[in-house]
Amino acid sequence: MSWTRKHLLDLQSLEPEEILSILRTAREFKAVGERHIKKVPSLRGKTVINLFIEPSTRTRISFELAAVRLSADVIDFTAEASSLRKGESLKDTARNLEALNADFIIIRHRAAGAPHFLSRVLDAHVVNAGDGAHEHPTQGLLDLFTILETKGRIEGLQVAIIGDIRYSRVARSNIWGLTKLGANVTLCGPPTLVPPEFEKLGCRICHNLHDAIRDADVINLLRIQHERQRRAMFPSLGEYRALFGINTEQLKAARPDATVMHPGPINRGVEVDSEVADGERSVILRQVTNGLAVRMAVLYLLSGGAAAA
Amino acid sequence: MSWTRKHLLDLQSLEPEEILSILRTAREFKAVGERHIKKVPSLRGKTVINLFIEPSTRTRISFELAAVRLSADVIDFTAEASSLRKGESLKDTARNLEALNADFIIIRHRAAGAPHFLSRVLDAHVVNAGDGAHEHPTQGLLDLFTILETKGRIEGLQVAIIGDIRYSRVARSNIWGLTKLGANVTLCGPPTLVPPEFEKLGCRICHNLHDAIRDADVINLLRIQHERQRRAMFPSLGEYRALFGINTEQLKAARPDATVMHPGPINRGVEVDSEVADGERSVILRQVTNGLAVRMAVLYLLSGGAAAA
Amino acid sequence: MSWTRKHLLDLQSLEPEEILSILRTAREFKAVGERHIKKVPSLRGKTVINLFIEPSTRTRISFELAAVRLSADVIDFTAEASSLRKGESLKDTARNLEALNADFIIIRHRAAGAPHFLSRVLDAHVVNAGDGAHEHPTQGLLDLFTILETKGRIEGLQVAIIGDIRYSRVARSNIWGLTKLGANVTLCGPPTLVPPEFEKLGCRICHNLHDAIRDADVINLLRIQHERQRRAMFPSLGEYRALFGINTEQLKAARPDATVMHPGPINRGVEVDSEVADGERSVILRQVTNGLAVRMAVLYLLSGGAAAA
Repeated sequence: MSWTRKHLLDLQSLEPEEILSILRTAREFKAVGERHIKKVPSLRGKTVINLFIEPSTRTRISFELAAVRLSADVIDFTAEASSLRKGESLKDTARNLEALNADFIIIRHRAAGAPHFLSRVLDAHVVNAGDGAHEHPTQGLLDLFTILETKGRIEGLQVAIIGDIRYSRVARSNIWGLTKLGANVTLCGPPTLVPPEFEKLGCRICHNLHDAIRDADVINLLRIQHERQRRAMFPSLGEYRALFGINTEQLKAARPDATVMHPGPINRGVEVDSEVADGERSVILRQVTNGLAVRMAVLYLLSGGAAAA
Repeated sequence: MSWTRKHLLDLQSLEPEEILSILRTAREFKAVGERHIKKVPSLRGKTVINLFIEPSTRTRISFELAAVRLSADVIDFTAEASSLRKGESLKDTARNLEALNADFIIIRHRAAGAPHFLSRVLDAHVVNAGDGAHEHPTQGLLDLFTILETKGRIEGLQVAIIGDIRYSRVARSNIWGLTKLGANVTLCGPPTLVPPEFEKLGCRICHNLHDAIRDADVINLLRIQHERQRRAMFPSLGEYRALFGINTEQLKAARPDATVMHPGPINRGVEVDSEVADGERSVILRQVTNGLAVRMAVLYLLSGGAAAA
Repeated sequence: MSWTRKHLLDLQSLEPEEILSILRTAREFKAVGERHIKKVPSLRGKTVINLFIEPSTRTRISFELAAVRLSADVIDFTAEASSLRKGESLKDTARNLEALNADFIIIRHRAAGAPHFLSRVLDAHVVNAGDGAHEHPTQGLLDLFTILETKGRIEGLQVAIIGDIRYSRVARSNIWGLTKLGANVTLCGPPTLVPPEFEKLGCRICHNLHDAIRDADVINLLRIQHERQRRAMFPSLGEYRALFGINTEQLKAARPDATVMHPGPINRGVEVDSEVADGERSVILRQVTNGLAVRMAVLYLLSGGAAAA
């Protein structure tokens, strides 16, 4: 299947075969990162603008390196120093950046739907780097890539996602991607953070950690994001850890070869203990490496590159 | 005419033929921005330092992209994180940057004359990216370029500049460039913002919007810059809009093919309504694209490149 | 002698011949900075991450330019916008950056020993860009390079280091490097800033400026760093200047060809007067230029490049 989309806005609207095209292409780009010269000329002379209205050093750097290794020129547009402070609208800012002959606008924004809005008013390729609590498609893709790389398949796997589901764009992109590719998804956390409406997305909901990870092939732990929670959704970090934190003891309920994932940055001693985070089942750092490969694949495919077969 | 200047400090001191040399060269560089690979090797191995003591994301990015597309290496020196906080003088900072073998120092500074001062103490090429209320020569050049591109000529045109003239370096660079190339310039705004001494620069002064834009070929709207006005120079934004804001109705006084310009960022609903800013007469986004081409031409010519004939 | 080390953590642990290898290699890279195209392809496709947890525009830019002129890709990781604010540990941050296939981590950190710690947990090359009051090895190397370039030798020279020795990593790296290469080092400043334990490092200690610089070949003035001094270590800047500031008059005690150095940024009128800082004996700006050459040499040697003979 050849790639035909102009933007990467979410995983919800992608066909399973499109997701697989990205994952196959990312496998080839992962090899570039292991070369002596970690660079290919695919996007030479193209301009990529990182429009991060909500700050994120990790994701921004990952996209920047992905673009640079494709030989693109990258401009970092930080919102704080920008015209947005002077009251300019997102649309005006984006159209001004596009007028600089930008080929790609990579946007992170607090508002769900901001990337979709930009895709309707711009000619440039738009990539969603996280919009509110909506989606974070490249994180979903790198999680899928890491599972596929570790387990050899996605279909039929038992995947438990633990933590703050309600506010998590990572959870939503994972759910869309995993269910499209045939995994069975269980969501687990306190009822305030895992509301029942997620069942409509085809997930099992469970408020007991032991039940959630029993026989799991993959356990994806989400970060407790203090910054996105207006009111306290659970009594304390200590109580969260006691009920939903993962240590070696809890991990025994999962399959012996269960993989532990986390989008980072980790709250050690809250959602995961160091013995697990740094243990042999953890693929947390591999996720970071894979994120770069997935983002290279996305930029490459959007620019018209041929998908790997 | 071949280019012989080492610095670009202002338009006041340029000969008309020098300005035309830049505009002709910019036309060739605009074509680079429309290519598949938007890059030429002219400044390969050269170092450009953006020394923006006064923050400006747009202009900084435009210069950065201009340098990058000429294959230069660009270093961003932001004042806030810098030694200037430790009490170092501008001269010491600039000479230290030059000691890193910088070829170009692009400076924006609150103080009028700061670029001229640097040009006397540095060996590097100095480009003025805006100094106080004095000049912003590349903005003046991109405005001239856009007028020439749109109208086919500058000589004999009626150009109305509306708004905060008193505090505007954009206005000053426009006035110098336009009058040198033979346009007739009318300045319009409240008397507090358009003082009578501008008549000495060869401009007509007018405090009535309808009179100012009657028969205008070009209407250049300036941003109401709250940040540069210490005291209130007009009663309110609402009153400013009522007297000097441009909407479709007011625009009828100008020529049917009148072009509307604005250096951005726009205060929609203050100096211009969206129906005009986004209308068919507006070249506001084209100005952004042309700014990149003009800045490429300036860096290229200063480095010894041959002017287009 | 071929270069075999993976990291540059300090000068204390280097052999004299290793230091000389860097200085000889730096001499070749200095010539690159004087070429028309100031760039070599040595680190093409390599990724250098500037991990500056303590802000420093000058040193960061010098490393960035050094890497760029070796054709590496440079990512700037600023601590303020980063996960470190979210409570992530230095180790986690560094391992995440390394997971992006980083080849070099250049670290500045308030804590002495932070680079050594990273070198034990990372596979990437680690370069110390200043750790607390411990060492700043590339500053020490550029000072050695500048002395060697100016005087033709280091062995047997009389070098006076004046100022805040106690809190200065620059002083420590200078002391290790100078004594290893056979110079005689005198430390001078108020007793609160020049404690007696420095004698153990093989230095002469002296609290009288005239005695310290008498017959000196090189006078290295340190910056009075208000930011690193918790309590007042001397009564006032005025008194410091009166006792330890250098002007033309004091300079007469040194040799007629004595060289004046300063790591910058200068407090003019405190540790040095402008007549001396800008005088013919000053090599302060040359130190900046040499810093770039030394850093290019360090990155090149660590990556496996051959040392100059």
